[in-house]
Amino acid sequence: MDRIRILQKKMIARAIDLAIIMQPRDLYYYAGTAQPCNLLIPAVGEPLLFVRRAWDFVLKETRLPHSQLVESARSSEIAAVVEAYGIACAKIGLTEDAIPASIYKKMIDSFPNSEVVNISPLVLEQRMVKEHQELEWISEAADLFRHAHNAILKFLRPGVTEIQLSARVLESVREAGGESIIRNRRWDASLPPEGLVVSTTNMWRISGHAMTITGVGLSNALPWGASHTEVVAGDLVVVDMGINLNGYQADIARTYVVGSASSLQLEVFNQVLAIQQVVLDKIKPGVKGKELYLTAEAEAKRLGQFQYFQGYGKMKGHYIGHGIGLELDEPPTLDDKCNVTLVEGMALAIEPKLIIPQFGGIVIEDDVLVTPTGYRLITPVERCLFEVRG
Amino acid sequence: MDRIRILQKKMIARAIDLAIIMQPRDLYYYAGTAQPCNLLIPAVGEPLLFVRRAWDFVLKETRLPHSQLVESARSSEIAAVVEAYGIACAKIGLTEDAIPASIYKKMIDSFPNSEVVNISPLVLEQRMVKEHQELEWISEAADLFRHAHNAILKFLRPGVTEIQLSARVLESVREAGGESIIRNRRWDASLPPEGLVVSTTNMWRISGHAMTITGVGLSNALPWGASHTEVVAGDLVVVDMGINLNGYQADIARTYVVGSASSLQLEVFNQVLAIQQVVLDKIKPGVKGKELYLTAEAEAKRLGQFQYFQGYGKMKGHYIGHGIGLELDEPPTLDDKCNVTLVEGMALAIEPKLIIPQFGGIVIEDDVLVTPTGYRLITPVERCLFEVRG
Repeated sequence: MDRIRILQKKMIARAIDLAIIMQPRDLYYYAGTAQPCNLLIPAVGEPLLFVRRAWDFVLKETRLPHSQLVESARSSEIAAVVEAYGIACAKIGLTEDAIPASIYKKMIDSFPNSEVVNISPLVLEQRMVKEHQELEWISEAADLFRHAHNAILKFLRPGVTEIQLSARVLESVREAGGESIIRNRRWDASLPPEGLVVSTTNMWRISGHAMTITGVGLSNALPWGASHTEVVAGDLVVVDMGINLNGYQADIARTYVVGSASSLQLEVFNQVLAIQQVVLDKIKPGVKGKELYLTAEAEAKRLGQFQYFQGYGKMKGHYIGHGIGLELDEPPTLDDKCNVTLVEGMALAIEPKLIIPQFGGIVIEDDVLVTPTGYRLITPVERCLFEVRG
Repeated sequence: MDRIRILQKKMIARAIDLAIIMQPRDLYYYAGTAQPCNLLIPAVGEPLLFVRRAWDFVLKETRLPHSQLVESARSSEIAAVVEAYGIACAKIGLTEDAIPASIYKKMIDSFPNSEVVNISPLVLEQRMVKEHQELEWISEAADLFRHAHNAILKFLRPGVTEIQLSARVLESVREAGGESIIRNRRWDASLPPEGLVVSTTNMWRISGHAMTITGVGLSNALPWGASHTEVVAGDLVVVDMGINLNGYQADIARTYVVGSASSLQLEVFNQVLAIQQVVLDKIKPGVKGKELYLTAEAEAKRLGQFQYFQGYGKMKGHYIGHGIGLELDEPPTLDDKCNVTLVEGMALAIEPKLIIPQFGGIVIEDDVLVTPTGYRLITPVERCLFEVRG
């Protein structure tokens, strides 16, 4: 219930009378259930949960008192109930990035005299700072990466294809209890649950919405992720994956070499590691997000690699990491404009990369929790360039 | 290009001046690329594809002439270009179920003098009847189910958990080249890529958005799909999965018994098979969708099983199947109100089920293509109750 009180405070500060929460992750956060529901939160007073289906499940799942549940399948009934409860609704908040236009229009029609505003920034700002249990779940999700790592060590060899490796990674994490769906906030983002498994040939071809090593995928319908490309001796292989456990995602990447690393591969790896380390060294409460990015950028310049830092040319990114939680890519985005101040309880992914045409790429992505004095690394696998049988 | 001409005809019939296509599957359908783009289709004349990222990929992927591509990252530029091209835009069509409210509002702001209407029904009506290549891809997707089936035959035994089976099914289909993301039209639907792997104990607990055997999942964050429940001798196990190949989905279910089927299990299986067969026998061009549902319902009543047909109580469904294609659950929905007339080139999933508290459930789901004289079954595995080691 504290979470609802925090949102109510934010609503009052912005003169928002009523918030309607519909997106499954937001519902799970505020009501404890991701079943088909609409959660009404007035600025003052108790929330009401309209349950469209799976009533018996909701009874067990939700943290709300059962007196605040309403069994209802019709969105038109919401307005009637709101009126009956005498909740003022001059200004209504919806999460406009997270619901479709069709639902938005229904809500506008149900509340013809109300102004509708976007409350996603309030919700995401609140979700940015995690509670103890949330940090535990993120840490447990991160810990599942050891299964993916072991699958790569076991199956990576010359002649294996990206898609075969992908299948092994996927199986290993699913069997260990990871979900096989990765959650994004962006409506059109879609990351395969085994992440991006990419070998040298496909490393500097940057596809889709993501600003990273993406791979080229299996068809034009989903042109990123693993392909049928065969790994050859000397290849670099990046595995960059989200891991979803209990609804909370970790985001981790490691780079592997098939055989012995060349001196150039080792040199580039050490540069990426150096960039990551200067960023990690900066992390503590009070630091602004943009300081992390600018620190990384300065180090990439000092190393003479700025041209390839976070991609190159038009596909270059200007961020060094992001929040993780109920969605894989949450605020804060740690870019050159990020004015968010770090506080204890944030969970961040720090992901420097150098992507160099013809050479390939190196990615190291680690998850950290912000502590009172710095950070705690929760990735379970050491930060090495792993040499796998050649 | 024919696809765009067909949409233009529909637009002219409804006095829609301009369609803006943004959702990745719709983009893939009309432009051949799922990269981040906006496709503008005027009622008369040539389309324009605004490319936000991955220009080099789009050049290779799209079927549009390159003269119709515009490299642009800003949605505000769209309105300027539309004005420069002299495209009338008194009435603009958007796919309102498929884009978020935030994008919808941006578009409203970019075209302040236009009326916006929902063109999703036009797009989905067109996509309902597939071309030859689309039917090939759906058939190839369906064919991948043999890998899932073999994984079940190999790994199902007393003591295995739903999640372990899930991991094997997932690996087998991914390795064979299936995607590990299943596409839905509904914004809040999310089906694990290995589908719903459910054993007896969890069969009559119906969770989430789906109207079927759902399983209970691993946590409240995603409370359907496989759980840690152990399979025991005598259990029924349903595997109901979408398979995505080249962006096209098949939707298939089979039911397995651990050990020898009891006479009751066999009897219920034969009833579900009988319901499916009367529906299949009806399928040919000219028949209305609701006739399929009503035929199934009549057979369920004749068998004395209507109470458990497509679920029970509040969780009972009133449909017998649906279209399949770029999304797992496309029009037509074969329910008691479906006035869509079947035509050659439709791809349908027919999914009768009996869900009986304490007993468990039987699901048989098969995919068919509507032919000039009837239907062609494309599921690669026979319609049996499979007895697996006890």
